[in-house]
Amino acid sequence: MRFLFLNLLSPLFSKPYYRHLLNLRHSLPLSYTTTMDAVEEALRKTLASKQASLEAQANAVRDLKASKASKPDLDAAIELLNALKLDKASTERKLLDAVGGANGGNGVSNEVFRQLVNNTLERRLFYIPSFKIYRGVAGLYDYGPPGCAVKSNVLAFWRQHFVLEENMLEVDCSCVTPEVVLKASGHVEKFTDLMVKDEKTGTCFRADHLLKDFCKEKLEKDLSLTVEKVVELKHVLAMLDDLSAEELGAKIKEYGITSPETKNPLSDPYPFNLMFQTSIGPSAASTGYMRPETAQGIFVNFRDLYYYNGNKLPFAAAQIGQAFRNEISPRQGLLRVREFTLAEIEHFVDPEDKSHPKFVDVANLEFLMFPREEQISGQQAKKLCIGEAVSKGIVNNETLGYFLGRVYLFLTHLGIDKERLRFRQHLANEMAHYAADCWDAEIECSYGWIECVGIADRSAFDLRAHTEKSGVPLVAQEKFSEPREVEKLVITPVKKELGLAFKGTQKMIVEALEAMNEKEAMEMKAALETKGELEFHVCTLGKAVSIKSNMVSISKVIKKEHQRVFTPSVIEPSFGIGRIIYCLYEHSFHTRPSKAGDEQLNVFRFPPLVAPIKCTVFPLVQNPKYEEVAKKISKSLTFGGISHKIDITGNSIGKRYARTDELGVPFAITVDSDTSVTIRERDSKDQIRVNVEEVASVVKAVTDGHITWANAQSRYPSHSSVSVDEE
Amino acid sequence: MRFLFLNLLSPLFSKPYYRHLLNLRHSLPLSYTTTMDAVEEALRKTLASKQASLEAQANAVRDLKASKASKPDLDAAIELLNALKLDKASTERKLLDAVGGANGGNGVSNEVFRQLVNNTLERRLFYIPSFKIYRGVAGLYDYGPPGCAVKSNVLAFWRQHFVLEENMLEVDCSCVTPEVVLKASGHVEKFTDLMVKDEKTGTCFRADHLLKDFCKEKLEKDLSLTVEKVVELKHVLAMLDDLSAEELGAKIKEYGITSPETKNPLSDPYPFNLMFQTSIGPSAASTGYMRPETAQGIFVNFRDLYYYNGNKLPFAAAQIGQAFRNEISPRQGLLRVREFTLAEIEHFVDPEDKSHPKFVDVANLEFLMFPREEQISGQQAKKLCIGEAVSKGIVNNETLGYFLGRVYLFLTHLGIDKERLRFRQHLANEMAHYAADCWDAEIECSYGWIECVGIADRSAFDLRAHTEKSGVPLVAQEKFSEPREVEKLVITPVKKELGLAFKGTQKMIVEALEAMNEKEAMEMKAALETKGELEFHVCTLGKAVSIKSNMVSISKVIKKEHQRVFTPSVIEPSFGIGRIIYCLYEHSFHTRPSKAGDEQLNVFRFPPLVAPIKCTVFPLVQNPKYEEVAKKISKSLTFGGISHKIDITGNSIGKRYARTDELGVPFAITVDSDTSVTIRERDSKDQIRVNVEEVASVVKAVTDGHITWANAQSRYPSHSSVSVDEE
Repeated sequence: MRFLFLNLLSPLFSKPYYRHLLNLRHSLPLSYTTTMDAVEEALRKTLASKQASLEAQANAVRDLKASKASKPDLDAAIELLNALKLDKASTERKLLDAVGGANGGNGVSNEVFRQLVNNTLERRLFYIPSFKIYRGVAGLYDYGPPGCAVKSNVLAFWRQHFVLEENMLEVDCSCVTPEVVLKASGHVEKFTDLMVKDEKTGTCFRADHLLKDFCKEKLEKDLSLTVEKVVELKHVLAMLDDLSAEELGAKIKEYGITSPETKNPLSDPYPFNLMFQTSIGPSAASTGYMRPETAQGIFVNFRDLYYYNGNKLPFAAAQIGQAFRNEISPRQGLLRVREFTLAEIEHFVDPEDKSHPKFVDVANLEFLMFPREEQISGQQAKKLCIGEAVSKGIVNNETLGYFLGRVYLFLTHLGIDKERLRFRQHLANEMAHYAADCWDAEIECSYGWIECVGIADRSAFDLRAHTEKSGVPLVAQEKFSEPREVEKLVITPVKKELGLAFKGTQKMIVEALEAMNEKEAMEMKAALETKGELEFHVCTLGKAVSIKSNMVSISKVIKKEHQRVFTPSVIEPSFGIGRIIYCLYEHSFHTRPSKAGDEQLNVFRFPPLVAPIKCTVFPLVQNPKYEEVAKKISKSLTFGGISHKIDITGNSIGKRYARTDELGVPFAITVDSDTSVTIRERDSKDQIRVNVEEVASVVKAVTDGHITWANAQSRYPSHSSVSVDEE
Repeated sequence: MRFLFLNLLSPLFSKPYYRHLLNLRHSLPLSYTTTMDAVEEALRKTLASKQASLEAQANAVRDLKASKASKPDLDAAIELLNALKLDKASTERKLLDAVGGANGGNGVSNEVFRQLVNNTLERRLFYIPSFKIYRGVAGLYDYGPPGCAVKSNVLAFWRQHFVLEENMLEVDCSCVTPEVVLKASGHVEKFTDLMVKDEKTGTCFRADHLLKDFCKEKLEKDLSLTVEKVVELKHVLAMLDDLSAEELGAKIKEYGITSPETKNPLSDPYPFNLMFQTSIGPSAASTGYMRPETAQGIFVNFRDLYYYNGNKLPFAAAQIGQAFRNEISPRQGLLRVREFTLAEIEHFVDPEDKSHPKFVDVANLEFLMFPREEQISGQQAKKLCIGEAVSKGIVNNETLGYFLGRVYLFLTHLGIDKERLRFRQHLANEMAHYAADCWDAEIECSYGWIECVGIADRSAFDLRAHTEKSGVPLVAQEKFSEPREVEKLVITPVKKELGLAFKGTQKMIVEALEAMNEKEAMEMKAALETKGELEFHVCTLGKAVSIKSNMVSISKVIKKEHQRVFTPSVIEPSFGIGRIIYCLYEHSFHTRPSKAGDEQLNVFRFPPLVAPIKCTVFPLVQNPKYEEVAKKISKSLTFGGISHKIDITGNSIGKRYARTDELGVPFAITVDSDTSVTIRERDSKDQIRVNVEEVASVVKAVTDGHITWANAQSRYPSHSSVSVDEE
């Protein structure tokens, strides 16, 4: 256990590269990354001591029986035993509550809530399991009409909020990607999950899932665990993503984990690449993959985009598109899928200047942040001002900070609850070695805290990888207004002398001399000047040689440079659109009692921006005159680009409201005259009366966010009608 | 030749199913589908007779020389020979012009024009060959910033024009598709192209491409072809898509076609499936494909969508998304690609009522139509009124006609030249056997007439195919307001009597009796009543048996039915977005001379709706005050959602105009004061003067199409400034 503990924190265990590639694919179960909390520890200890008392008392009762003690003595002892049992049971309940967390103690209600939301979503066709009539395919979902509308609203706002606002260069690249590109990016080699096979049936499982399920089940249900065992299991959970194939295999063996259904033995874990593979063209010789992220399309186009931007930094490119990951066994419904929409930004910046001119615009924003230190020391996320977080160095730089702020504004504007949104910094072992800093926007839902946006400073890694593989330099130039004088180190090995002294090994020595850094070279220069000779270790020879002052000349010269050539850093905010939308569904979902009080009605409280249908038009009663007015209003709404629905069924207004509340329609126009009509707002149920001619433009103004509902209420007379209202 | 001719027109040759699947993939080279035109035929005949005269005269000269004729006689004969040569050359030139068409006579200028457009498109990053730094992949292109913006403008307008206007149910389905779905649709078996291999190098070619190239080259360059040979080659071209593997192979052998580069022999043609194949999940047992069209996602969801629509017909579902086709050897640049965006509509309708309530809205539209009859009789497309076309039965039904009209409005609104847009009806041999009617919107560009939208009445084919394969009935019900009385035929074989008479074969006879249609049954009834017996042929037995009147009872009964259950017909307008955009580029492209007249400047005359950037903001001179105003205007434009570009470089206004004309920016705001500024319209170069506070809303109004530029000119003072204007 101790060994494991040490090992898990050692850098040998961390696979930061791999970790990055799986970005947006998992969210660490944070409750497990902190050490056991004090309450739980106390309860476990209490429980253990109560168990001991109970056993002692049980023995005492047995002894009394054996010794044929008097009935009053025996009764008293049994009564105590029962009291101890009750007492222990009460502690057990407390412990169950404490360890359950999101999936345990409140688990039942979380589960029920999720069922309720998902039933509504599926019944109203927000989503449909793909190819349902053919029994579907795990991890593939279609967006039905309201879901598709929500998605296109979210994407339109993303374009307005990021692309237009920041003048980003939006591109649209191929999904089919040739192997060479994904070899350069590391996906071919490392974009894998560890898989185990049922040795008899051949069914495949994710090795970490099985280990995770085992540990969680133990922790939540086995109350007899020792404190040490609890710590061990929690650490296994915390470090799950960092375990090697061998370590995972060892744990699976140690814990005796078998195939979930059949209980058959499992194979050793082995890597399975998560990309969908195909071949391009007719010859089968050209391997391709469906892209696992959109970012690579931007990186390979860097040179053209930089030129398009007038060879100026910083600039950002953006892309919205499908990405594909062939999950081994998709779980968590809409959160872990095999095909999904990403919206990614690659902001290219001079690594020596990561300031941002518009940082002041967000500097005063305050939101929940969860820096590395707080996570390690077992604290909670806390409200921080982003300006302060950057100035204190908690967030690495202004550009990264600017995007944290912009992402916060984006998500809350969509309707994400700001109390259930936090920005969690990656721990050192989660982060790629080249990354400067990395934060995830995590949204809390019934599945726990879900990573929905990753915001990473990836330094120059990606551009360098493609430069190397393609041979095309993906670099930027800074032209100096005046040439700059730069001090340059010049090392000139005297080949003739070296050749005489070291026949055969001369080449390696020349290379080693030329490869010295400034410090080494200056030390050598000093030594040669004072002593005329020194021992010099040549790695490629594996030994030291004696260098004399006539064998090398070392000097510093001043050179004029007209420009600086460098590989830009990239700061990457990457949005999992489907995850954001799912969390939005949960955060928007409410129930309210029907008027009769006999049932709970479902409402999606979407902001007008997001709502799939902005407005319904109901004639109050079936009447050709009212239907004519309704059609006229519908035509004006269409002209204004406002999605809406006419309902001329004879259903009661209450029933019609209930039906559209489930679709999150924010406004309802009721036609009860041919001159003026009422507009009802979904959440307040307030109504205003507006002229038929004006009504479409009022709804458009409120929907587009040009005026608020309160503004509209102050401009138009309110309308109260008991007969017209609810259920 | 005669044999081929007959064969090509015989229905045996047509593979309508296959033809449909390749929808949007090719455009028939229409010049070849008509018979040879009169001019060409006359020229070829003239040429042949001139050739004969020339040969005769050459013989005459030779004879004169041999007979040592007098010099004047010989000179006169040679003079005549030369005159005949010149005369023949002139006829040859005329014939070359006549046969060249888009790719011949005007071919050079078409080629040059295309180069000019494509150079501009690639230089300004409208598109980028995907993975360019890795030398690219044929048939894959990325949209760079302006191309991406044009695409999202086109899609946004598509949503407004179709989805919102018609209240369509938009969905968004998986690209990854399991095999069972594409087996049901026929793609696994039939979505193929015929391929030949270079027998030595293994390089693959499309068999029909090689044959097509051969025939075109012959027709355009070999002026000695006989009229019969010309007719033959043209018919091969016209029927290219309908040739079987054997027929294609035979033609390739007959014409001695070899591998283009190496001249090696070619293999026999064999089918290559055009879908990108992959496997879903870890086991490799589950084959999947990247969808070759978006339509199947809608068909498999029909039941849910019908329910969502309140179990009412007609309704339309729509989808925008990527589709994938693994072309053997992509050609024609942006027109024939391996990954592309489709926008598809599936309009479900009662097969017994294909009227459309909004048909009146388009009935008076007049546009170029090219009905089947005109194509067969060698005429040209002509302007027809769609109302008339439907009433005369040229277009099968109102719904199909309505969509033709709506597609016409969509394309011309985007900026497609209405004189280079025609609706071509499929010939009988192009159409699937189940299709009621099919029209392609074809746009003329430098590649010829290109199929950009297919509008097909596909009857009940797709829903029936998925019903059969999945076992889930994809049907609609019409509930009768009152039960209807329906006459039903009842055939009751008397099994006991049949068993006695036909031991062992009784079952087959019972089935054959029950399978009789109404006519057969009523004839049998009459025969049994009059003669008491008749000979009845039983297919499954392969012989006739004698049926007596006691062996079967046949009657008609009146039944009450409460509803009608039927498979809806589907009318499918399917848009190749990339093709439409490419044609739009060509139609929008113009050049104008620079002011100095020394060069041609490129302009894309995009309508504001389509333009990637709506507006530029230029301070007239570099001045902090003007830059401040420019930034203020930029902020208002961003708020209004208007994409724009500030240019504060010190370049001349003329240079800045030229730069943005190439991106098709329709409006330029020049800041030359801090109270009012000018707006210049790209095509007229007219300018108006507007207050700084108002300018953003004026640009927005013109861009969104709420007012026209002429409206704006009438509201604001015009501004003329020679010094500020052009080059």
